[in-house]
Formats: sequence, C-alpha cells, structure tokens
Amino acid sequence: MKDLGYYNGEYDLIENMKIPMNDRVCYFGDGVYDATYSRNHNIFALDEHIDRFYNSAELLRIKIPYTKKEMKELLKDMVKKVDSGEQFVYWQVTRGTGMRNHAFLSEDVKANIWIVLKPLKVKDMSKKLKLITLEDTRFLHCNIKTLNLLPSVIAAQKTEEAGCQEAVFHRGDRVTECAHSNVSIIKDEILKTAPTDNLILPGIARAHLIKMCKKFEIPVDETPFTLKELINADEVIVTSSGQFCMTACEIDGRPVGGKAPDIIKKLQTALLNEFLEETN
Amino acid sequence: MKDLGYYNGEYDLIENMKIPMNDRVCYFGDGVYDATYSRNHNIFALDEHIDRFYNSAELLRIKIPYTKKEMKELLKDMVKKVDSGEQFVYWQVTRGTGMRNHAFLSEDVKANIWIVLKPLKVKDMSKKLKLITLEDTRFLHCNIKTLNLLPSVIAAQKTEEAGCQEAVFHRGDRVTECAHSNVSIIKDEILKTAPTDNLILPGIARAHLIKMCKKFEIPVDETPFTLKELINADEVIVTSSGQFCMTACEIDGRPVGGKAPDIIKKLQTALLNEFLEETN
Repeated sequence: MKDLGYYNGEYDLIENMKIPMNDRVCYFGDGVYDATYSRNHNIFALDEHIDRFYNSAELLRIKIPYTKKEMKELLKDMVKKVDSGEQFVYWQVTRGTGMRNHAFLSEDVKANIWIVLKPLKVKDMSKKLKLITLEDTRFLHCNIKTLNLLPSVIAAQKTEEAGCQEAVFHRGDRVTECAHSNVSIIKDEILKTAPTDNLILPGIARAHLIKMCKKFEIPVDETPFTLKELINADEVIVTSSGQFCMTACEIDGRPVGGKAPDIIKKLQTALLNEFLEETN
Repeated sequence: MKDLGYYNGEYDLIENMKIPMNDRVCYFGDGVYDATYSRNHNIFALDEHIDRFYNSAELLRIKIPYTKKEMKELLKDMVKKVDSGEQFVYWQVTRGTGMRNHAFLSEDVKANIWIVLKPLKVKDMSKKLKLITLEDTRFLHCNIKTLNLLPSVIAAQKTEEAGCQEAVFHRGDRVTECAHSNVSIIKDEILKTAPTDNLILPGIARAHLIKMCKKFEIPVDETPFTLKELINADEVIVTSSGQFCMTACEIDGRPVGGKAPDIIKKLQTALLNEFLEETN
C-alpha cells in the first residue's frame, strides 16, 4: 500500500477511510496523538513516543484500550503494510463515540485508536531554516500533545506565506517553542533550552539533543530565554521528530546563528547516526 | 427522523453518518460552529447565529461554500426533517479534506458543512444553577467559536463530578465566562458583564439580555468583574443559547445571588416571550 489509514481495527488507503460523525474528535478535538518516523520499516524511538502518548492521554483522562506493548505491536504491524520503509508514523486516540455533550461519555464507551502512515523521509540537516516570530496565544496545556491545534495551523500558514519553514512562539519576551517543534540556542558553547513546563511540549528530539550535548560535555541550561537571546545566539536549533537538529539562518528576515558550526556538525552527525543505527 | 446528521449534502440518523478520516477536524479541530434552538420547526435568532458563524469562519480564514442565505435555507430545510419541532440546532464548517499538514490546503479544496439536529427543549429558567470556579487556561481566541474545546470538555466533566451545572472561568481575579455560557451579575440594580474582547465569546443570549436590560432601563456596565464581585453579586446570571437568563444559587458550595428576584423575573419573562413569539 502507498499509505495507510487505520481506525479501530479497520484499515485502507487513507483517502478511502471514514470515521463516525459522532467521534468526539469531530466536535471537541477530544484526543491526543504522537508521531515519529520509520526507516527500513523500523520505528524510531518508539518506546519514548509511546510513553509520551500514554502520558498525554492520562493527563486528559482518556483510557487507551490497549497496553503499551499491544499498541507498539499494532504500530509495528501496520508499518510493514506500507510499501516504503521510510514513513511518517502518526497515531492518535480520541475519547470515544457518542452524542455531542461536553462532559465525558459513560465509562463503558471505549476510546478510538487511529493510525496514519505515509511515505516521508527525515529532514536533510544541511538545509537551514528561515523562521518567523509570533506571539504565543495557545492554551496553557502545551505539555499535552492534543488535537486542539488551531493556533499551530494558523502559525504554519503564516510561516508558509512568509516563505519560511517554522514559527517561533513567544509569550511577551519569553521564547516558548515553535509551532510544531522545540527551539534551543547555543551561546558561548552552552545549549540553552526552555524547561519542560506547561508552555512547551516535552520533545523527544529535544531530549535526544540534550543527551547528546551531555555526552559531548556541552553544558545544558534548561531555563527560559528571550527573543533577544534568540536573535543574538551563536546557533538557533529547531528539533522535532524527523528534524533531529536543524539550524536557522534567518528570523523575521534578519540573519541569525552560524557562529558555532563545529558544535552543530558534531551534534547533527551523532544524532543522525543514532537514527540510522536504531533503524538499520 | 428522530435526529439528523448532515455532511456535505448527505444526511441520515447521526449514528449512521460517517465522515472522511482526512477531514481536517480529525487532526487539528480545524473548524468553527454555531448552535441555537428551534420550536415548531422555527429556528430562533437564526440571522444572529449565522452572522457569528460567518464571522468565526472569517477570523480563521475558512471559506464557507454557501452564501448566508443558502446556509439559512439549508438549516431550515433540515430542521423540518426531524420529528420533534423542539431541537438543538447545531452546525459547523471544517477547513476541508486532505492529507494531514498544518498549513491550509490549496485554495480549490472546499470547506465541509456539517449539521447536527437532536430533540431538545430550552432550559427551564425557574431552576437555579450550582457553579464551580476554575482557572481559565484556554487560548486567547475565545471570541471565535472553534472546535478546539478541550478545556471546556475538562471543565464540564469537573462540573458534573462536583454535582454542579456550569463552571465559571477566571484569569487570576478576573471572571471571563463559563465553560459554555457567558456569565453576568446584577449588583445595585446594574447589570455588569465582561466586554466582548478575545477572552469571551460574544454570546447571542448575552446580547439579548443586554438589549432587554436597556429596554427596562436597567443600566448595563460592560467592564470586567472579579471573583469577589461575583460572589457578592445580588444575582449571578448565566446565559447561552437555550439558557436565556438562568440564575445561580451556589458557587463552590457557597450560596450566592437571590437578592434581586423581581429584576430576574422581569428579564426571564421578557426573554422567554421573545423566544416564544419568534418561534410561534
């Protein structure tokens, strides 16, 4: 198959798949998701993504109807059904199906499991990103990977219209994260990245970046930083699944970063190798 | 039919209806809605709800594929197909159908139109509401009636578990609105209600309440009020479609309101009559 859509046991090409109108996703965006990449039909960092997925669901009191082991087996099975081994591997759980009513459905209504697979390669890290900045107007639950993504949708559209690749959100002076990535900086050979509070997603690529910095004895400072620090950084690093360590060359049309290329090269090579080895 | 689900020209009982997996509502909650009530198969305050619906869509740059007139005719037609004349009349538009990608789809992809109709009567205003208070953690686009409703879902569940009927949101000391209603107070024969900025929905029942106060020469003060003012109010009024002027008797277990019953009675009678006359 060229791609795959899965819903509660049924699967087909995504464009053929339908879901019930009363799935609570349709009225409330009532669900959480996670996503990573596969290579050679092997899913990268699956344990970490599954842990975060269950954590997101628990924070919203959504009961995933499978054990973590069953969920992982299901994803591994489905990934094998798509022709390309290099895929964007996406899954979500929605609270259940029932007549529209804000409060939860009765306890015996099962949550719905969705999977979306499509051919996609991880990003080429030699390319540099152009960024825009936008006020962060999102809700205060950004640590949960929910399906309430309108502010990120609007930001992505503005980014595209500006001819850029990602938007950096800030609350006043404080940089939080990007519309669908985390953002970190290198200044004076130190990695600075916002702490994982309720204003940012605890990114798995971000965690890998931190781990790799520690391995290379690059000090890591997990405190919030400002827009001014972002602009004056030696390097601006954008991370997300499939973007292990991208750097920015421009923010709002002004050149940024590019002043610590050796550190970047070392991190990019190590992070790419980690991916290649795990998915060999 | 006992109820009705409509999607892009197809309709059936809601539980029989399915929608494409790639409708952007499924991944982003990328849509807006509006809702009102019907009686005798006549839809109440339809022009106002349609105006707000088109305004919500425009604020998110979603192009509704019908004129206002066509949209109203469609709703009027569908309402006639349900057995009961007293219905909750709900409709939404989602940005379109296509492979998951945050930025908008190409210009030629049409938005999707949804309608949900179910038998329901407007609320009995002689009943008093018990309320809880919750910190308002929502995004800063509460003036747009979007399908990103997770904070309201969680609030509704907490409300139900507390044996109450609605949750009052506040940002610090400032009362904003309820999880799915507006909230106003009467103090010293003046109606005080938060202004329609980006922190509250411009409620149509709220607008009718204000209009009715002006008719009765009750002064209206559209400025933010605090939790303390709410607790000490002569009356606490909760309004939404189908709840023209409900009052609260309790907030977080403490008795509130009940000190201006004559004003309340006058407003409730007038607002109910307005509904009954328009839907006769």
